[in-house]
Amino acid sequence: MRASVHRLGMAHPGDLSQLAALFDAGTLDPRHVCAVIGKTEGNGGVNDFTRGYFTLAFSALLAERSGRPRAEILDSVPCVLSGGTEGVLSPHYLVFAREAVEVAPVTGQKRLAIGVAFSPAMPPEQVGCRAHVDLVVAAVQQAMADAGIDDPADVHFVQVKAPCVTAARAQEAAARGAAVLTAESGRSMAYARVAGAFGVALALGDAPAARLTEDAMFRDYDLQSDRASISSGVEVACNEVILLGNSAGWSGDLAIAHRPMADALDIGGVSAVLGDLGLAAAPQLSAADAARIHGVLVKCEPDRRGALRGNRHTMLDDTDINAQRHIRGAVGGLVAGIIGDGRIFVSGGAEHQGPDGGGLIAVIARV
Amino acid sequence: MRASVHRLGMAHPGDLSQLAALFDAGTLDPRHVCAVIGKTEGNGGVNDFTRGYFTLAFSALLAERSGRPRAEILDSVPCVLSGGTEGVLSPHYLVFAREAVEVAPVTGQKRLAIGVAFSPAMPPEQVGCRAHVDLVVAAVQQAMADAGIDDPADVHFVQVKAPCVTAARAQEAAARGAAVLTAESGRSMAYARVAGAFGVALALGDAPAARLTEDAMFRDYDLQSDRASISSGVEVACNEVILLGNSAGWSGDLAIAHRPMADALDIGGVSAVLGDLGLAAAPQLSAADAARIHGVLVKCEPDRRGALRGNRHTMLDDTDINAQRHIRGAVGGLVAGIIGDGRIFVSGGAEHQGPDGGGLIAVIARV
Amino acid sequence: MRASVHRLGMAHPGDLSQLAALFDAGTLDPRHVCAVIGKTEGNGGVNDFTRGYFTLAFSALLAERSGRPRAEILDSVPCVLSGGTEGVLSPHYLVFAREAVEVAPVTGQKRLAIGVAFSPAMPPEQVGCRAHVDLVVAAVQQAMADAGIDDPADVHFVQVKAPCVTAARAQEAAARGAAVLTAESGRSMAYARVAGAFGVALALGDAPAARLTEDAMFRDYDLQSDRASISSGVEVACNEVILLGNSAGWSGDLAIAHRPMADALDIGGVSAVLGDLGLAAAPQLSAADAARIHGVLVKCEPDRRGALRGNRHTMLDDTDINAQRHIRGAVGGLVAGIIGDGRIFVSGGAEHQGPDGGGLIAVIARV
Amino acid sequence: MRASVHRLGMAHPGDLSQLAALFDAGTLDPRHVCAVIGKTEGNGGVNDFTRGYFTLAFSALLAERSGRPRAEILDSVPCVLSGGTEGVLSPHYLVFAREAVEVAPVTGQKRLAIGVAFSPAMPPEQVGCRAHVDLVVAAVQQAMADAGIDDPADVHFVQVKAPCVTAARAQEAAARGAAVLTAESGRSMAYARVAGAFGVALALGDAPAARLTEDAMFRDYDLQSDRASISSGVEVACNEVILLGNSAGWSGDLAIAHRPMADALDIGGVSAVLGDLGLAAAPQLSAADAARIHGVLVKCEPDRRGALRGNRHTMLDDTDINAQRHIRGAVGGLVAGIIGDGRIFVSGGAEHQGPDGGGLIAVIARV
Repeated sequence: MRASVHRLGMAHPGDLSQLAALFDAGTLDPRHVCAVIGKTEGNGGVNDFTRGYFTLAFSALLAERSGRPRAEILDSVPCVLSGGTEGVLSPHYLVFAREAVEVAPVTGQKRLAIGVAFSPAMPPEQVGCRAHVDLVVAAVQQAMADAGIDDPADVHFVQVKAPCVTAARAQEAAARGAAVLTAESGRSMAYARVAGAFGVALALGDAPAARLTEDAMFRDYDLQSDRASISSGVEVACNEVILLGNSAGWSGDLAIAHRPMADALDIGGVSAVLGDLGLAAAPQLSAADAARIHGVLVKCEPDRRGALRGNRHTMLDDTDINAQRHIRGAVGGLVAGIIGDGRIFVSGGAEHQGPDGGGLIAVIARV
Repeated sequence: MRASVHRLGMAHPGDLSQLAALFDAGTLDPRHVCAVIGKTEGNGGVNDFTRGYFTLAFSALLAERSGRPRAEILDSVPCVLSGGTEGVLSPHYLVFAREAVEVAPVTGQKRLAIGVAFSPAMPPEQVGCRAHVDLVVAAVQQAMADAGIDDPADVHFVQVKAPCVTAARAQEAAARGAAVLTAESGRSMAYARVAGAFGVALALGDAPAARLTEDAMFRDYDLQSDRASISSGVEVACNEVILLGNSAGWSGDLAIAHRPMADALDIGGVSAVLGDLGLAAAPQLSAADAARIHGVLVKCEPDRRGALRGNRHTMLDDTDINAQRHIRGAVGGLVAGIIGDGRIFVSGGAEHQGPDGGGLIAVIARV
Repeated sequence: MRASVHRLGMAHPGDLSQLAALFDAGTLDPRHVCAVIGKTEGNGGVNDFTRGYFTLAFSALLAERSGRPRAEILDSVPCVLSGGTEGVLSPHYLVFAREAVEVAPVTGQKRLAIGVAFSPAMPPEQVGCRAHVDLVVAAVQQAMADAGIDDPADVHFVQVKAPCVTAARAQEAAARGAAVLTAESGRSMAYARVAGAFGVALALGDAPAARLTEDAMFRDYDLQSDRASISSGVEVACNEVILLGNSAGWSGDLAIAHRPMADALDIGGVSAVLGDLGLAAAPQLSAADAARIHGVLVKCEPDRRGALRGNRHTMLDDTDINAQRHIRGAVGGLVAGIIGDGRIFVSGGAEHQGPDGGGLIAVIARV
Repeated sequence: MRASVHRLGMAHPGDLSQLAALFDAGTLDPRHVCAVIGKTEGNGGVNDFTRGYFTLAFSALLAERSGRPRAEILDSVPCVLSGGTEGVLSPHYLVFAREAVEVAPVTGQKRLAIGVAFSPAMPPEQVGCRAHVDLVVAAVQQAMADAGIDDPADVHFVQVKAPCVTAARAQEAAARGAAVLTAESGRSMAYARVAGAFGVALALGDAPAARLTEDAMFRDYDLQSDRASISSGVEVACNEVILLGNSAGWSGDLAIAHRPMADALDIGGVSAVLGDLGLAAAPQLSAADAARIHGVLVKCEPDRRGALRGNRHTMLDDTDINAQRHIRGAVGGLVAGIIGDGRIFVSGGAEHQGPDGGGLIAVIARV
């Protein structure tokens, strides 16, 4: 197998022209597309419709070009979008593709491997509960198998998109006599993210299984996976997984690395992940090195204690700008400055995903 | 003379308790305070009242402790505040003080020198015009004299706070038969910033005098001063100047350096200014080195061409978040990450202040 | 001819399920749909993508159900959306349809008539100029003909969607040696709205032709049409017109009326337009009377002098919330309260559309 | 006793010039000022510093003019501010004054009576609990006595400003072994508002005492007082009460009335309260009648079920604009339109204060 990653820009959230051009030019076969991770220019909140807009336009294009029905595409090609291109961040999306190739992998060289999985549909009363965690564990294991990765140490980034509870779903559950953890969408998304993080941590062995209990959620923040990137939204009914790692069974010229970020000022974490890929920022990557990068994926969080290395921050008490918008802009500015490129996927809501108050970074680059 | 700079935090824009504590402890004599530059947690726009709130609380405290009338303080101690602590930025203010000391300066060692000046009150019809530029030139020269600096090369940062036109002032001018450039406050502030930048450039010789004409404003962006930091507001009626440089005539242990920033991703400019002060970020300052820093002053701007190194940014078309808030958060995140501290003064509106699309950075540190 | 207007709700900007249901039930023939005016839940600014999202979903649905190509639908069925459902406003859209019927109109009874028109594509250098005004005049006349209305007095509401200048379009013009009035999108939209308003005023005789010159734009605010509702956006290349009036040549049970609103507090204008249709609010419409209403269309504006009946308002100086969002929420709250229904189309940017500082209201109801 | 109410405008949150002018002119004796309720132009959220700015400027002015220490004023003159002048709302404040007069009240005529009270300081662990309710009951009773009102039916509006929990207060409580209901400021404010509403309802007999239990909070929304207006903030340590009613023991020419508002579209409630005072809006008050009004006080709430009379609203899911800002703008637009004046005090957060999804209105007018 061989993986490819195309990083494409867009003029607006419905603009798939760069992808269409790749199809037109024969550079990319529509049937090889297996996943999308993208950054659209919405607010990243409940009322961010740039994600739905992109998904509609993407699925319509892929349906037209691949000859597959739109519904089938929505059920088999995970499309995970994070709204919010604060500051220097540039709207863009990563198209992940894979194809069987006859070239044998070079012995001893691990290359980027991609796996996807969809859990069964999940009833709303399971959102954020142990049953949710178990569904994610199974889906991550399935995505590992799909990627042909045996050793959890070879996994470097797991993107999960998990369902949340809505008012309508809560009522449907109540009608069946089932109770949801919360009917408030925003709160429910946080529960879903934590269940997803616990699921990834369990599947990959990032934290002791005995401690990953419901009681530990939102409490024991040392329990975390620095390879878990979880988002949640009303638009999915099951848990969608995109798993990225390196494997000796894959050929190609891409590899992935990841590192935790201790806090929003942890420039050291960024340097380290670049170093893992043989890239040196001094203090910025050279243009040649920057051109080797195919994708940068960051998860971060405004420190919930209201201070950063002893100095008060104001993100959590701001009624004008959502805290996640604040942190994405700041961490995006830092990472973009080191790499010299604004095409950084930065997503907030990093509970139990990397160190408390920090997060994680993964980079895909040509080796 | 000896200069000192105290960097103080605040719990809210009216909280001067850390300054009061310095007075209480005898660490700082209220009579030595000569200027304040601060970052309050407002939105940085026309309706940002955190600046007025701070100024009221500061002037009341200084009046009480120094025995000088509040009005006299407002007319002699420049208090320049920039609203907006986006992302990791921490609300804080720099208190500049100076005192005559008997210690002779060490030969060959230039140390931080501080000068202040107030232009005469300026009628609204002069805002943004040549007459405005001339007033700033004179005030900068006066501040240089106040700081005891002869050579413009020894000046590293000039903060100007310039008046703007308001609807009321425009009407007053019209009643006298005078016409203002614009009666729109926001637009008028931009005019005032450019006139201020041209004034600093002229006074310091940063651009050819013959080219610094009214026609060149908002047009020839290569005409700029990377030592000019201009803000404008309804709260002043004259041009207030705080000038910072190094001088052999001053003792103490502080020095200042500055560098241009080519764009919002110019991490190299940040490294360079730290290097000028003997500080090395690799990739972040050590805690010991960070503790040597007494103030970081940054000016920046969302690139008005809508792209950054070829990638589209969305700051200028965002109806939800003002463009200046975006850029402050991003550049603040970058600089804070390198230094390891969120107490960075970052101000937007950098027309002709540093390179087009970029800005400048100045750092005060113990040597 | 017979006109119908369906007022439909949506769960999100891509939700056309209520329209699909009308098609499914045979209540509405897709081939009869001639125009859409809708209110989506975006911010109403440059970066409001809810309009594009709705348009994509709408045109895809209509293409599928009518068998016409999507491109043809976009070029023949005007779809005018205003973003922003501030306060009590409810996301909804009006589907206008017309069909030839054999029933002869009742003598002496004028009923709702609908006409649409598209001007030729307009080069960017014409935006906001006299040539723009002339194109709108011709399009309005064409729409009157399309509606079968001879007497301008029978026209009650003209919705125009006009192109604006973008950076790309300005560069294209410059390459041809042509100059645009402004390359700034937001400013260009205002120019386009004023040209549209002047065009409608000329076509309908709402102001003296001799005074409707370029010089009068943004200046002589007594020149206005209280039947003109103009929006502008990057998404169109020509001027699209939806014209609504009453005609003896149309049958059906709907009629339309309109009134100016003197300012944002002009509850009298709202009462008057309801009275024109035989509806009395005392102080609110009865449920039965409210059910007779098929559409409410409002245009309004924050008073540019910064005060309302002598009391200062803060809409124009708010860096957190755009002024148009403020005024839509306030006027929407007033109109919705009188009618008892939040499905009100309220659009800002009312320069020369109704009295200065006010706007207009049109209501479609069963008679 | 005789009560007076001065409604004053402000150019910014620190502008007390109109009050100073009343003092200068001898129109108002500083020693008679007993309370202030005002609407400042902040965002109304946790980071709204316009309230603190106004309070600092007000207390400094009153201290200077009355000769009383600022601390004493803060502890005896309640100053309750609500941030947010969305839409047509105009920044203003009501200065309540009372003085002993020799004129005997006219028999049979009840006139505006004002009472104030401060509960003892309340520890954070009591916020939102039964103990909090009891403190409010006692303070309301004390304010009734202060106003000389015996019959709860004569009370028309009770403004309570209650403390909330902050992170620091929660830690202080924890250090004493006490537990707070929540350490999250926003959530704690809601608890405090509900405790305040229950306290007023108990004190005035607006709901059965047996049902006003902790379990009923946020649940049994039919338990409410349409005379309770509660706000909560970090700036107070005890419960401050301003009670307004009519009393035969007071002279003067002012009276107050109140009505519930069933929902945000309840124009009928507004008409009714005006009718109670002999004022008729048809559809708007005449200028002469509007001039009789000295204050309008409104409490409202975005319907937490996400719909208003069957139509979806978007206030609760908006990440860009806080829901309270939305509802204030809409209800403010409605009430201002009926009265013809933007000087309306509108405050959000109306849990158990008036009908669920609605709120209340009180009007003070000359009779």
